[in-house]
Amino acid sequence: MTAKDLGARGNTGIVFRNGVMDFNADVLLGFAQQGGMAPGALMQAFRRIRNGSPASWASVFTDLARRFEASAAAAEDHSATQVAHRAALAMLDPRTGEAREANAGMGRAFRRYLRAAGILLEHRPIPFRSRLLPAYATRSIGSADRLVLVIGGGDTYVEDLWFFGARALVEAGWPVVMVDLPGQGFTPDQGLYFGPSTLEAIAAVLDDLHARGFAGEVVMLGWSGGGILTTKYASAARPEDRIAALVASAPAHDARAMFERALPGVLRRNPDSRLLRVLLSVVRCDPVLDASLSKYDWQFGPAGLMGTLDAVGESVRTDPSLLDLPVLALVGADESEESARQAETVVDAVRPAHPSSRVVTFPAWTGAAAHCQIGNIPLAMREVLGWLDETLRGGIACDWTPWLAARRGARAFWG
Amino acid sequence: MTAKDLGARGNTGIVFRNGVMDFNADVLLGFAQQGGMAPGALMQAFRRIRNGSPASWASVFTDLARRFEASAAAAEDHSATQVAHRAALAMLDPRTGEAREANAGMGRAFRRYLRAAGILLEHRPIPFRSRLLPAYATRSIGSADRLVLVIGGGDTYVEDLWFFGARALVEAGWPVVMVDLPGQGFTPDQGLYFGPSTLEAIAAVLDDLHARGFAGEVVMLGWSGGGILTTKYASAARPEDRIAALVASAPAHDARAMFERALPGVLRRNPDSRLLRVLLSVVRCDPVLDASLSKYDWQFGPAGLMGTLDAVGESVRTDPSLLDLPVLALVGADESEESARQAETVVDAVRPAHPSSRVVTFPAWTGAAAHCQIGNIPLAMREVLGWLDETLRGGIACDWTPWLAARRGARAFWG
Repeated sequence: MTAKDLGARGNTGIVFRNGVMDFNADVLLGFAQQGGMAPGALMQAFRRIRNGSPASWASVFTDLARRFEASAAAAEDHSATQVAHRAALAMLDPRTGEAREANAGMGRAFRRYLRAAGILLEHRPIPFRSRLLPAYATRSIGSADRLVLVIGGGDTYVEDLWFFGARALVEAGWPVVMVDLPGQGFTPDQGLYFGPSTLEAIAAVLDDLHARGFAGEVVMLGWSGGGILTTKYASAARPEDRIAALVASAPAHDARAMFERALPGVLRRNPDSRLLRVLLSVVRCDPVLDASLSKYDWQFGPAGLMGTLDAVGESVRTDPSLLDLPVLALVGADESEESARQAETVVDAVRPAHPSSRVVTFPAWTGAAAHCQIGNIPLAMREVLGWLDETLRGGIACDWTPWLAARRGARAFWG
Repeated sequence: MTAKDLGARGNTGIVFRNGVMDFNADVLLGFAQQGGMAPGALMQAFRRIRNGSPASWASVFTDLARRFEASAAAAEDHSATQVAHRAALAMLDPRTGEAREANAGMGRAFRRYLRAAGILLEHRPIPFRSRLLPAYATRSIGSADRLVLVIGGGDTYVEDLWFFGARALVEAGWPVVMVDLPGQGFTPDQGLYFGPSTLEAIAAVLDDLHARGFAGEVVMLGWSGGGILTTKYASAARPEDRIAALVASAPAHDARAMFERALPGVLRRNPDSRLLRVLLSVVRCDPVLDASLSKYDWQFGPAGLMGTLDAVGESVRTDPSLLDLPVLALVGADESEESARQAETVVDAVRPAHPSSRVVTFPAWTGAAAHCQIGNIPLAMREVLGWLDETLRGGIACDWTPWLAARRGARAFWG
């Protein structure tokens, strides 16, 4: 196993030899389809970064975030500022003041973007055990008939979820809620870690929505680790949650198996801690992987990643036979076979009762073959919107025909 | 002078060592901000291309164009098809059936895109000396008060002009006309070459608009070589042309100087044909540059590039003192100094009488520092739209407030 194998997730290997950096580069280029930093600004930044050096990466993007923020005059500039801060966060030690500043700057820029672009999402953190989960929701969400709850993974921040589906949903007229669960985003800074509370927080989010008057159906949209969390939650949801459908890239019922299959064969056959320590010592020779693992340690709390992963993995294991809702699975052809296998298992379990359930696999030429379809998320979201239309008969919460008609009408105005 | 120096135009050098290929890669990534092929699809394509091999580049994109076209279901797919054909065209021998097919496929895909996206541009070739100039115009253009005429350069095809400003203009409510002049796009296939007829065709385009009832003001927007052509035309326009403003990336008054400054010092001091032949023999060892030069030869007609360039360069030389209109110059900080110098000269000449005239220089961190701002064209177009608003007092042809209000209203619909 090379360091690149560990960090790479179906990314293309064009920009950086280092797998983690290269995946991050492909994520940022993917965001450019929907705003964020322009392709030319990203390529210029990549040119200034030393391959394999997290410090070089972080300093280039921190510098850019300051420049974008200082000269921001329009929505696009705020979106670029958000993404530059976000890029810096990917390689900063999250326990430092620099990281806190980047996180604050990212949120500030996203809120300025929403205002400048006239998008009716509001920043509304959700109380959870005397802390606040960072969250954004469509204004007046309480009166919506249906909504999509967007949940990210181990590497996302709540503001990222704008690019992971929220934007496409908002443009199609769907009310949305975006939230960081314990362990996600910058929540470890508040003492919130991946663990049992991560799942419990989903119930708290739904309770908060109900307290605001929401009484409609909920579609869960989970990305990366969010695919594991939403699959588990959907299998044990309370009747009042009214979970109408699950969309995940990708749904997964066995997080431990996913992790174990990612390890080299020798470790799978001899999973003792001595070998794992040797592996980790190898990994820690790669400063980028080391920074990533150190960030994961922070997200898993005082016992760290290795001390917690087994227990957390076990707590989110799902019995697929308990799932009773339509499921759409999004899978990239360049992702691990284990990911595709688990998506199939989940979909096979629900398809008899919910025949619209299916696995959509994106081949390389579509650009959506990497983890979370990061090279073409809009394509994945077209599948999602079409499937929701087909699956949730009776219409979505908002008929978006008037919106399209208004656009066409406006275009006709000068015709 | 290395081959890379000759082909590179402020591109970032990340994707290909070959300068021409790398510039083309950055162009395609830039298009992804506005549609076209998704970043992930482009990166997957780049991974399959052998650096420096035009055949490899052309076959990868031809294959992709077929796949996109065969599975196209929405506007986005047609845009990807258009761009894949376009990418193939950049490295195909334009005298072949493959190139003709790619050109036809590109136009077909763009028209499908316009229909599917509900954009009110129509394909309306413009008669010129018993041939037809490929052109697109806002429907009912004859009744518009003002319009923007978008002119590309030596490497653009009329459908590309959608990404070079037309899209941003249409979204802002501006009527537009996009056209390939003789020598541009695929017009050499009809026997139309760069030369005196290139400028004469601009008058023919305007006459055609007047014949359709248009009696308004015209803004000229020129890119690359189009900056030279529009500067020249604006200096000698007829009163009935009503040219109200010139925007160019970048305006240029002396094409020969631009070409000569791009040559190495030894040639500038000894511009005899023997040295030029030696230079060309070196260039032709790079198959990508060879393909580019062979394409330029085709565009300049039977006498080829070298036999015609001096005369053509002379015919578009502009006396800046003849310019009497506001000028906005867009310049990338990574472009040649000569380009920046000529833009300053043009703007200096008109600024006393037209004080809103200015040069906007985009530094590297904006992503718009390359030739034609290809890494962040939307940023350049924000400058253009703001400047047109400021310069053409009395409002633009269409007040686009209703369009924005309609968008906001639609967003509020589900709020």
